[in-house]
Amino acid sequence: MEIPSNCILIIFGASGDLAKRKLIPALFSLHIQNRLPEGFAVLGIGRTPLDDTAFRERLSKQVHEFYSGAVDAEAWSAFSQRLFYLTMSPENAEDYPQLKERLAQLDAEYKVGGNYIYYLSIAPSVYGTIVTNLGKQGLQKEESCTQCWKRLIIEKPFGYDLASGQELNRKVLKVFREVQVYRIDHYLGKETVQNILVFRFSNGIFEPLWNRNFISHIEITAAEKAGVEGRGEYYDSAGVIRDMVQNHLLQVLGIVAMEPPASFQADTVRNETVKVLSALRPIRPENIESQVIRGQYVSATIEGQKVRGYRDEDKVPPYSRTETYIAMKLFIDNWRWGGVPFFIRAGKRLPTRVTEVVIHFKPTPQILFEDHDAPAQSIPNQLIIRIQPNEGILLKFGMKLPGAGFQVKTVSMDFHYANLSDTHVPEAYERLLLDCMLGDATLYARRDAVESCWEFIDPILRKDAENLESRIFSYPAGTWGPRQANDLFNGYSDGWRSPCKNLAQDGQYCEL
Amino acid sequence: MEIPSNCILIIFGASGDLAKRKLIPALFSLHIQNRLPEGFAVLGIGRTPLDDTAFRERLSKQVHEFYSGAVDAEAWSAFSQRLFYLTMSPENAEDYPQLKERLAQLDAEYKVGGNYIYYLSIAPSVYGTIVTNLGKQGLQKEESCTQCWKRLIIEKPFGYDLASGQELNRKVLKVFREVQVYRIDHYLGKETVQNILVFRFSNGIFEPLWNRNFISHIEITAAEKAGVEGRGEYYDSAGVIRDMVQNHLLQVLGIVAMEPPASFQADTVRNETVKVLSALRPIRPENIESQVIRGQYVSATIEGQKVRGYRDEDKVPPYSRTETYIAMKLFIDNWRWGGVPFFIRAGKRLPTRVTEVVIHFKPTPQILFEDHDAPAQSIPNQLIIRIQPNEGILLKFGMKLPGAGFQVKTVSMDFHYANLSDTHVPEAYERLLLDCMLGDATLYARRDAVESCWEFIDPILRKDAENLESRIFSYPAGTWGPRQANDLFNGYSDGWRSPCKNLAQDGQYCEL
Repeated sequence: MEIPSNCILIIFGASGDLAKRKLIPALFSLHIQNRLPEGFAVLGIGRTPLDDTAFRERLSKQVHEFYSGAVDAEAWSAFSQRLFYLTMSPENAEDYPQLKERLAQLDAEYKVGGNYIYYLSIAPSVYGTIVTNLGKQGLQKEESCTQCWKRLIIEKPFGYDLASGQELNRKVLKVFREVQVYRIDHYLGKETVQNILVFRFSNGIFEPLWNRNFISHIEITAAEKAGVEGRGEYYDSAGVIRDMVQNHLLQVLGIVAMEPPASFQADTVRNETVKVLSALRPIRPENIESQVIRGQYVSATIEGQKVRGYRDEDKVPPYSRTETYIAMKLFIDNWRWGGVPFFIRAGKRLPTRVTEVVIHFKPTPQILFEDHDAPAQSIPNQLIIRIQPNEGILLKFGMKLPGAGFQVKTVSMDFHYANLSDTHVPEAYERLLLDCMLGDATLYARRDAVESCWEFIDPILRKDAENLESRIFSYPAGTWGPRQANDLFNGYSDGWRSPCKNLAQDGQYCEL
Repeated sequence: MEIPSNCILIIFGASGDLAKRKLIPALFSLHIQNRLPEGFAVLGIGRTPLDDTAFRERLSKQVHEFYSGAVDAEAWSAFSQRLFYLTMSPENAEDYPQLKERLAQLDAEYKVGGNYIYYLSIAPSVYGTIVTNLGKQGLQKEESCTQCWKRLIIEKPFGYDLASGQELNRKVLKVFREVQVYRIDHYLGKETVQNILVFRFSNGIFEPLWNRNFISHIEITAAEKAGVEGRGEYYDSAGVIRDMVQNHLLQVLGIVAMEPPASFQADTVRNETVKVLSALRPIRPENIESQVIRGQYVSATIEGQKVRGYRDEDKVPPYSRTETYIAMKLFIDNWRWGGVPFFIRAGKRLPTRVTEVVIHFKPTPQILFEDHDAPAQSIPNQLIIRIQPNEGILLKFGMKLPGAGFQVKTVSMDFHYANLSDTHVPEAYERLLLDCMLGDATLYARRDAVESCWEFIDPILRKDAENLESRIFSYPAGTWGPRQANDLFNGYSDGWRSPCKNLAQDGQYCEL
């Protein structure tokens, strides 16, 4: 177990949602596992006027709600001694000398030798200003100390479209060097997403099949059961394409589709992801209608309860044309994937929360045995990589139906991550925060990757923005989206795999 | 469900072991499932003087012991009306007109129109005589009736070595045509052996891997826990090579290694098996010592009970050099398998009864991730096809060990045949008897296959017979055979997969 060097984590937006829900619980968990360095402190920054004690007290209450296990009082007490707070306005350049001073103080106290991580957990509109302000004080500089480092973690969204994404990168990179910048995508922190890499590249039997010769098509689904839940204002300006596809789903796609890297270093791995993302075949404006299906949920009754339609949500304009559902067919123009369609979908108010990748293999070259459930057809093999919930792997294949003759029956075998129960499965933020402290950017998005994603997405966003006639289909809340999304599969299958069983009492249950 | 034409099954050796243990229970089961034709009768033949009633009474008692389910009295009563007996000496040509007459009688009564199956469930030394006697009465002739058939089922051993195997075939084929001859190998009747075909040829993902490019080596194990158990005299003249390898194991090997047939007809499938068996690289006399390990069990204490060594078994000569264990490394000289060793082993008085095929895949071309349990190594994937007990499929592969870094952990997923519990899994003899009635010889051994097996085995048998110095290693009863058997794996692995867990209380437990 490698322990990071001593360092200070500065959280901009420390009184916000992400800090209390994810960052502090993740750090506390690392503390309990003794993964934090001896010299480690958190400096929270926010406009809310608090002192260290008040900050600690707030978090002491919140941790019970957001930490996944039972909170050991002694451990928490030790950990909370590492938490500090500075009341200042991140937009205000004049407040930064004060920050610099406080950091110097803590630096001396914790012997961190100049190692700082700035975590921007704050409205994206302020990113540029904060970076500029840090730069003015030279707080990004690594030359000021020996072997020390300064790192910057940015939360998505990394811009709003291609132009603003590029603009943000330019602003950031005027102050920081790219190797200092850690663009966090918590999807890449998920164990099961990382496992796709291990699964693909540590098994002699799957990688040889992982290409156009043996794979017919691939589905990636990220479904949410929740609606916009109080985030109507943000959501209406974003939509599911920006919220889910441009970052999470395309990153997952990159991992599913990448070539084997020659080594497992941050840049060798990220070079391969970028190769995939920049090989995405642009969807031409005239093909958007046939390759992209947008949807918006309307009011319906779910499990006996009436839920609002999207346009009736708080702070959503009554004539909003923002999509809450997207299904897309796309291609990667390279030798591995030539001609293999990828179907990706994401949405809110779907029947359940589930994220999974489904690899559909090609059928056998000849049908030798009749399928018991589908005579005269051959049911192709499927490999399902479940990212959440019930994380694991499911393989569907044919076995002989016992009895006379030779009939095939599709059966399945699975492996559940939960079976490795002797091992702590870390939360995404635990993994990513630790990686950043260790200087491992493998699971962080690099500039070129982010911009490649925007390049691919931009024409779709523009078409919708420019054309009030662009199609958006309604779907009742609690259903799998507009039925038109199944038409994308023409010639490949009847439509999306349904990852769930309907259990009358419990609603949708997503067994692997 | 195809129902066979009306027919009579004539069992030579009807008062013997196989009839009561396997044949009658299998027929009874087919009767219950309504798989037998309306006009169906069994004519038992034996020297023991019995009439129909006595024969039925005997079987009525025995069926309770040997039928796997509860015996429904009404069903048995209906079934037993189909059983008849004729006291005669199969060696005595003068008794055959009597047989012919009895058959004519039953034929008329059951309207079978001349469809007979002769089942030789009797000492192999008499096979030739019976066939000759049947021929003298023209009982093999199919021209005597319209669209009728006469079939002959022969139980192994099909000879004692290459010369006698060829001689038996010549004798049989002087009277019957090859298409009339059904050489039964009950291993091929096993659901899980047949499933190998379905598994290989109905899945898009396994067949592409099924060759020298992706497979490192293959193990086939058939272990018995029992000793010779009263069959000392027979066993000492046979040994495990004749008893298990020449027939069962090489047939399984044929199915594991065959090319995909162009259709699933008896002869297209059997053509492919023969191609494999005739491509077995002959083991040259000078290589026998290094490729074939013979063993013989000696007295030991198993689970607190002292068991006899082989040479102390009843009717086994005290200086017997017959092998009760064999392990062998062999090669198939064709394009699919060039350079891939097959390791096969069989034996008596091993720790448990288990038959399985283990496919060892090649490791990944490069080790990208460290294995948690074997640093700096890559643990190759394995596919285990369990033929008995706990029939099923087990796949061992690498997943990410949860937590920091990227370590691989070998996990497994399995499918158990028992999970298809809504389906009746027929006994091997049910399947094979029904197939013979239906004229489907797919799962029966053809002349050329049997002779190819003898050709391969013969030099090994001859070397042992001619050379009293030929090595035979002792192993304590209840162990996995002589340790020298692991040396066969030099350069491939440390030795045989151990298919079992040691459970102190229950002895060896073979989980999949």
